Amino acid sequence: MRFFSDNAAPVHPRVMEAMAAANHLDTAYDGDALSQQLDQRLSEVFDTRIRALWVPSGTAANCLALAALCPPHGGIVCHRDSHIQNDEGGAPEFYTHGAKLFLAEGEGAKLTPDSIAAVLDAIPDDVHRVQPHAISITNATEYGRIYSPDDVAAIGKLADQRDLGLHMDGARFANAVAMLGCNPDEVTWRAGVDALSFGFVKNGAMSAECLVFFDTKLADATLYRRKRAGLLLSKGRYLAAQILAMLDGDLWIDNAIAANARAQTIAAAAGERAIHAVEANEVFLRVTPDEAAALRAKGFDFYDWAPGEIRLATAWDTAEADVAALAAAIGAL
Amino acid sequence: MRFFSDNAAPVHPRVMEAMAAANHLDTAYDGDALSQQLDQRLSEVFDTRIRALWVPSGTAANCLALAALCPPHGGIVCHRDSHIQNDEGGAPEFYTHGAKLFLAEGEGAKLTPDSIAAVLDAIPDDVHRVQPHAISITNATEYGRIYSPDDVAAIGKLADQRDLGLHMDGARFANAVAMLGCNPDEVTWRAGVDALSFGFVKNGAMSAECLVFFDTKLADATLYRRKRAGLLLSKGRYLAAQILAMLDGDLWIDNAIAANARAQTIAAAAGERAIHAVEANEVFLRVTPDEAAALRAKGFDFYDWAPGEIRLATAWDTAEADVAALAAAIGAL
Amino acid sequence: MRFFSDNAAPVHPRVMEAMAAANHLDTAYDGDALSQQLDQRLSEVFDTRIRALWVPSGTAANCLALAALCPPHGGIVCHRDSHIQNDEGGAPEFYTHGAKLFLAEGEGAKLTPDSIAAVLDAIPDDVHRVQPHAISITNATEYGRIYSPDDVAAIGKLADQRDLGLHMDGARFANAVAMLGCNPDEVTWRAGVDALSFGFVKNGAMSAECLVFFDTKLADATLYRRKRAGLLLSKGRYLAAQILAMLDGDLWIDNAIAANARAQTIAAAAGERAIHAVEANEVFLRVTPDEAAALRAKGFDFYDWAPGEIRLATAWDTAEADVAALAAAIGAL
Amino acid sequence: MRFFSDNAAPVHPRVMEAMAAANHLDTAYDGDALSQQLDQRLSEVFDTRIRALWVPSGTAANCLALAALCPPHGGIVCHRDSHIQNDEGGAPEFYTHGAKLFLAEGEGAKLTPDSIAAVLDAIPDDVHRVQPHAISITNATEYGRIYSPDDVAAIGKLADQRDLGLHMDGARFANAVAMLGCNPDEVTWRAGVDALSFGFVKNGAMSAECLVFFDTKLADATLYRRKRAGLLLSKGRYLAAQILAMLDGDLWIDNAIAANARAQTIAAAAGERAIHAVEANEVFLRVTPDEAAALRAKGFDFYDWAPGEIRLATAWDTAEADVAALAAAIGAL
Repeated sequence: MRFFSDNAAPVHPRVMEAMAAANHLDTAYDGDALSQQLDQRLSEVFDTRIRALWVPSGTAANCLALAALCPPHGGIVCHRDSHIQNDEGGAPEFYTHGAKLFLAEGEGAKLTPDSIAAVLDAIPDDVHRVQPHAISITNATEYGRIYSPDDVAAIGKLADQRDLGLHMDGARFANAVAMLGCNPDEVTWRAGVDALSFGFVKNGAMSAECLVFFDTKLADATLYRRKRAGLLLSKGRYLAAQILAMLDGDLWIDNAIAANARAQTIAAAAGERAIHAVEANEVFLRVTPDEAAALRAKGFDFYDWAPGEIRLATAWDTAEADVAALAAAIGAL
Repeated sequence: MRFFSDNAAPVHPRVMEAMAAANHLDTAYDGDALSQQLDQRLSEVFDTRIRALWVPSGTAANCLALAALCPPHGGIVCHRDSHIQNDEGGAPEFYTHGAKLFLAEGEGAKLTPDSIAAVLDAIPDDVHRVQPHAISITNATEYGRIYSPDDVAAIGKLADQRDLGLHMDGARFANAVAMLGCNPDEVTWRAGVDALSFGFVKNGAMSAECLVFFDTKLADATLYRRKRAGLLLSKGRYLAAQILAMLDGDLWIDNAIAANARAQTIAAAAGERAIHAVEANEVFLRVTPDEAAALRAKGFDFYDWAPGEIRLATAWDTAEADVAALAAAIGAL
Repeated sequence: MRFFSDNAAPVHPRVMEAMAAANHLDTAYDGDALSQQLDQRLSEVFDTRIRALWVPSGTAANCLALAALCPPHGGIVCHRDSHIQNDEGGAPEFYTHGAKLFLAEGEGAKLTPDSIAAVLDAIPDDVHRVQPHAISITNATEYGRIYSPDDVAAIGKLADQRDLGLHMDGARFANAVAMLGCNPDEVTWRAGVDALSFGFVKNGAMSAECLVFFDTKLADATLYRRKRAGLLLSKGRYLAAQILAMLDGDLWIDNAIAANARAQTIAAAAGERAIHAVEANEVFLRVTPDEAAALRAKGFDFYDWAPGEIRLATAWDTAEADVAALAAAIGAL
Repeated sequence: MRFFSDNAAPVHPRVMEAMAAANHLDTAYDGDALSQQLDQRLSEVFDTRIRALWVPSGTAANCLALAALCPPHGGIVCHRDSHIQNDEGGAPEFYTHGAKLFLAEGEGAKLTPDSIAAVLDAIPDDVHRVQPHAISITNATEYGRIYSPDDVAAIGKLADQRDLGLHMDGARFANAVAMLGCNPDEVTWRAGVDALSFGFVKNGAMSAECLVFFDTKLADATLYRRKRAGLLLSKGRYLAAQILAMLDGDLWIDNAIAANARAQTIAAAAGERAIHAVEANEVFLRVTPDEAAALRAKGFDFYDWAPGEIRLATAWDTAEADVAALAAAIGAL
């Protein structure tokens, strides 16, 4: 009964089927029939004309977006606990050729216009200081918190006022949209987002994430950057197939609803132990070392986030029975 | 009847089956049971202790190898027509942070100790000049030519004398080994190769290439570089599964034998039209525009390499009947 | 009466004379007779065999040192208020190809083993996290505080334990040594420093700083990096002349003693207004906007450091009369 | 009697005087009164509104220009024997973050529209290939050849047609203009040049070169890049003073006329030995090893350019007597 990571979950059968169905000769790289459908298909999803590029990892999607929004001599405001700062091995600095991440505060890894402005206002407009060029937010956040359309729009307004690009790391975008019950456009481009890392791997795909540009002119140079980073896989049709399968019949939403629901069950059992409001598919709990050991003894696996804190992640395939057992075990602590 | 690119070929059924068999919960990134087998399995293949890292593209494998062998202020000798120079969108410069490619000559895109030494000898040992740190050769080459163990060893000796690293781009390594009929160690580390991009995608895999370090100490920093480049896919088990399936029962050799044989059939029909000796799975022919049109009119697809030159590539699944038809069509020109 | 910046001060007459004396034909770059003396002359100053490279700016010295100590995928621990973090326009990221600065705390911009260890201990030894490779401290600090030999040695010990390089930004190294009254070796290599940016420009030179490697093997690649950064000036003899003139007769110490003494006079007048202990040539004072205006009305120029805080910098040529007037004006607030 | 390098020459007395005259307190970096005059003064020289930045080396000027004209994923066409390719230690790749130099042919290191177009036409418009973004020419060239206004305009037209930026490396721009007898605008912006590295150091200055942007919008980001490269010297007034002194009374032209005249004297003596037309201050001669030894035995110093080829460089201060002696010695071979 593993709650360690949504990356550990298997690939959804419909994704596997779509990859099998794509297993025939076709044009290499992104010239195949499936890759050629992405722009149109995602334009429908987002109800506006977008440009979409598949990439094989979320880090790649994030960092290509940052490179499109920020020059090497610029900087990007992000949360102190964001994935791009802590969990990508310096990939943002690699892809941007050394842009600086400016670290902002915010409960639950959520930025606010105030916390961003506090960082911006501390940077003199001076050649000696790296100047900010973009903001990056994560929805859902690293702590499973969600930005509503209004939350994003408030940040989008600030970005617009300060002439900054706005990127959304959507490794768990599906979980956010599923919980919000909104259309995906409401929480992205209508709220000022220029580029979205639309995540599928944590939600049932195998190796395909989608970089979506709402500011479509950013896509042109990104095609070259993707190739230059070794990310233009030669048999791209298998990545496009994954994305299209996830979009078909709103599988991405259904998977996220399932994962979110499991997390809610855990949250209900956790009560006051929950460190953050549970809004997506992650639950952070306060437990003593003895309690953590007791849970592990019963066969539950999870991530030791920090001293006295554990993270439990659910996925599209997390069994209700496992969650029920976990909830009981937490209640019994 | 497409002879356009081996990248256009489908994925071998045994690889698809291996990926399906891996479709269960396991540890993320490269902590899974399959990824953990790579070092051991490839050490057996190469009859020495190696370090192996999966990556999702050949460009990624090549450029991580180059970054391990050459500092940003150094340079790498490669063929003027090499993939790293012409077909990777500047990825070598990206991964090495701006190392310079020194372009050497050689028939059939094959370097020789003399052609390499000619480049090296023209570079004064002087702080104003970028200094060479590595050599990169491609086996089989971009023109389907093969380096024998002796060919490689002669270059390996030069590399050793000049204190240079030696990388082999093996996007079509299987085709070379299959044609040589040697063991893979003979044409790599025993001949002085430090790092090999062991290609599987053109030979029946989907999205997994393997970077093999014979100079094993190079692997440590490369683990960080792979992550930093967004190449550490979160569900790495599906890449490891592909590589293991290709190695199992020597599928990689069998597939290459098949592709090479088809190329030989074409070569036999081509006679004097062949521009390069046909030693792997690529055939380059001299044809007039009218002849090219005639072939296309009969349903054959291929790459217009240069004015008056076409490239025909075979793959693991190229049908004998298609090749027979092509041979007849060439004969009829 | 300007107390705005020690960079605003003129060049010392003996430095100007040395440059004039060097104004004859000599070998270009660093092949001239003066440049060739630097290793020997600075080895005497530091009582050990060192390698020395002139560079035209302190930022260049700092960042070449960081590039020698940290790979692109690594990180460097420095103070949150350090010059490399705040005042070099992202040059550390440029020179290191994107290494990350880890920001540590400490009163007066001074790091301590504890504040450094707090940062280090929060970084898991994990490929997803940028790993630390070096520590950079500034002596005297951005707030005019000084690391004693014992202070540095404690950090040097930590660096040794954690296998990290240790860099000292010595833009105001002369002020520190002058105040400590120690030999320069005591506060550098004997305390574990691997590379020192030995600053001269703020202390009476024009455009020559000296990068000193105590870990001499770091110098070899740095020669290439210096050239590659456009920092190997073609008439280097004029830079070497400046450094040699500053060292001759301990001009560098005498100049620093003078600047420090002027700062002490201001500090004595400032009393409780001083925000930091005054140990070098900078004085930070709490003043109201009205008080700042009053000082300016009397002809004093200074830097508005932060709301309610001003910085006053003295230099080798600051007149005693000006300082006396300033002290009186502060007393009269 | 040294004819080794114009970098070996001393600094002109009027430049030394100007630096001495600047030796008083002033604002740091480029906020001083002299630096603030550069835009206006150089706008007069070039008869159009330009933006000018001092930098301490020609390599820095060249590479900041290239970084302004070409993104990291792009490429720059230059001559195979150009300084940026051969003599800057990889600085173009450093400053541009890995852009590729495309090497073109041309007699005397001069590019022509045809030689450039040959390179451009060989690059498919394809994401797998690095795309060209700029052309860089050197005037006078590495072999002392000169581009006339018409020569440059023909290349400028090609640049315009292909949407490429045009950079001129003017390390010996003064020698070119002096020989052409034209106004500096005729051979630069009126002929399509976007950015000029206006060299002064080889022509009598100490450490100040001037990067001139005719496409003035390129200057804004370059201010940040200059700082980020550690090139924004803190006492910039001494660099501005050099440039202004060189411009005052057309000292830059007078110095170049003198150097060019000395080269003509040598050329006249050399006759058929001259490898390239002598148009600036460099003379390349065919000499046997014995002849080279004979010249050295008479006290002449020069650069062994290639087997059987020597380079003789004159400078602003080369004595007529020395040249006469050299001419006689060459005649006596």
